[in-house]
Amino acid sequence: MIVHVADPDDPRIEGYRAVRERDLAGREGLFVAEGRVVLEKLVRGGRHPLRSVLLAEARVGALEDVLAGLPATVPVYVASQGVMDAIAGFPIHRGILALGERAPRAAQALLAGLPPQALVVGLCAIANHDNMGGLFRNAAAFGADAVLLDADCCDPLYRKAIRVSVGAALTTPFAQLDRGTDLVQALAGAGFEVVALSPQGETELRAWRPAARTAVLFGAEGPGLAPQVLARTRTVGIAMAGGFDSLNVATTSGIVLHHLAAARAEAG
Amino acid sequence: MIVHVADPDDPRIEGYRAVRERDLAGREGLFVAEGRVVLEKLVRGGRHPLRSVLLAEARVGALEDVLAGLPATVPVYVASQGVMDAIAGFPIHRGILALGERAPRAAQALLAGLPPQALVVGLCAIANHDNMGGLFRNAAAFGADAVLLDADCCDPLYRKAIRVSVGAALTTPFAQLDRGTDLVQALAGAGFEVVALSPQGETELRAWRPAARTAVLFGAEGPGLAPQVLARTRTVGIAMAGGFDSLNVATTSGIVLHHLAAARAEAG
Repeated sequence: MIVHVADPDDPRIEGYRAVRERDLAGREGLFVAEGRVVLEKLVRGGRHPLRSVLLAEARVGALEDVLAGLPATVPVYVASQGVMDAIAGFPIHRGILALGERAPRAAQALLAGLPPQALVVGLCAIANHDNMGGLFRNAAAFGADAVLLDADCCDPLYRKAIRVSVGAALTTPFAQLDRGTDLVQALAGAGFEVVALSPQGETELRAWRPAARTAVLFGAEGPGLAPQVLARTRTVGIAMAGGFDSLNVATTSGIVLHHLAAARAEAG
Repeated sequence: MIVHVADPDDPRIEGYRAVRERDLAGREGLFVAEGRVVLEKLVRGGRHPLRSVLLAEARVGALEDVLAGLPATVPVYVASQGVMDAIAGFPIHRGILALGERAPRAAQALLAGLPPQALVVGLCAIANHDNMGGLFRNAAAFGADAVLLDADCCDPLYRKAIRVSVGAALTTPFAQLDRGTDLVQALAGAGFEVVALSPQGETELRAWRPAARTAVLFGAEGPGLAPQVLARTRTVGIAMAGGFDSLNVATTSGIVLHHLAAARAEAG
C-alpha cells in the first residue's frame, strides 16, 4: 500500500520524526531499521511485525521485489528525499527506513525451547552498539541458536546495532534478563555448560571441546567479565603474540564461534 | 621538557591546530595520535620519532612514567583543558595528543628484510579506518611480521585507525605500494605464497597449512578482492551457517590469523 507524503508534519509518519533523538531515548515497543539488506531481513524474517516503511521516491523502483513480500496492510510511505530528511531530522542517504514492533522474548521460554544440542551466546555489559552489532553478525554467521543479554547490555534493536549486524539482530532469537536475574544461573539452570572467555582463561580455545548444550560468555572490552562470573564458570582464553593481551570483543566472538562451529561439525 | 602554553594561537603548537580537518586532508610527513596507550606505544616502539606531546594539565601527573621515557629534546606542551580544546578544534576528552613523524618504508626493502619464516598481511582497498585499525590490531595480536597495503587503502596512521588498532599501527611494520605496483607480484617476487580470502574460497580455512613464507590478502567488504587478484592466488574461505555469506573484514582477519598462528605453532 503506497502512500505519498508531501508534508513533513503529516501525522501518519510520526514514528519517523527525529529518529536519532528518539532512538537514543528508547522507544516504547518500536524500533527503526534502515537500509535495503535490513529491510529484506525484516520482511522475510517475520519475527518482528512491520508497522510501516518510509522510502525516498528514488528508491521505490529498485525495491519492488522486497515490497512484494509485505502484507497489503502495511503502509509504504513515499516522500521526496528532502521531505524524508526533514522528517528524520538528518540526511537519510540510504533512503530506506522501516518501523518495526518489538517482539520481546522471555529468557526462560527462549532457553527452554532450544534443542538438546544448542549454542547460546551470553553477553555481559556490552555497551557499545558497534560491538553489539558485530556480536550478532558473528552469532548468525556461525549458527548460534540464541543470544542472551544481561540487564547492562545496550539494545540490539538500536538502529546502528541492527545495521552493523547486517540484520542479524532481527533474525537471531534473543532475550534480555531483568536486573537482578543472574546470567550464569539462568543458563546453568537450563542445562547449559557455561564457559567464559577471558584473556587469563584456564583452557586454550583450540583445546576446548564444547558440551552438547553450551553457552559462551563475552564481556565488555577493558573490564572484561566480572570476577563473580569467572569464579563460577570454566574459562577459556585465546593464545596471542607477546605484548598483546586483548582483542576486540566482536573479533573474539568470531574466533570462538568459528572454533565451536568446527568442533560441532567434527562431533557430527 | 615541559612547556606551558596559555595561548591557543601559540605558534609552537601549530601542528595540533584544527586536528580533524588536517587529519582528513592528509599531513605532510606527520601524524597525530591520541590517548595514553597509544602514547606509550609511540614512546616505547621507537619506530616513529616523536616531535612533541600536548597534554591537558590534569593528565600530567598520571603520565610521569611514560614521559620519563621521552628524549629530553622532545617538548611536552601542557595547557588547560579549555586551551587544548581550542587548539584542537573539538573537545579532547582523553587530554593526550602526540605529533609523530612518519617513518615510511619501501615495500621491497620491508619484504626483503623479513626472516625465512614470515607472515605478511596484504590489504586491498580497505577504505574504512575502523576496519584498518582492527586489521592492524589483529595482525599484532597474532604476530604477523608485516602489513603490505595497496595504493587504494586508507592511511593506517590516521588518528582513528591508530586508536582502534590500540597502537598496533605504530608498532607493526608496514609499507604502502605506489599506484601501478601490483600487490600479488610484489609478494610472489619476494618468495611468498600468496593466499586470498574469499567467501567462495576453494580451500576451507581449517584445511589450510601455510607455507614458510605466507602472505594472506584481505579485500574490502562488499566488493571483496578483485577477480584479477583471485585468479592469480590460492583462495581460502571460512565455512558459515546457511544464509550468511560474509563477515566483517577485521573479524575475518582475526579468525584467519588465529588459525595461522596455531598452524605455525604446530609446525614448530
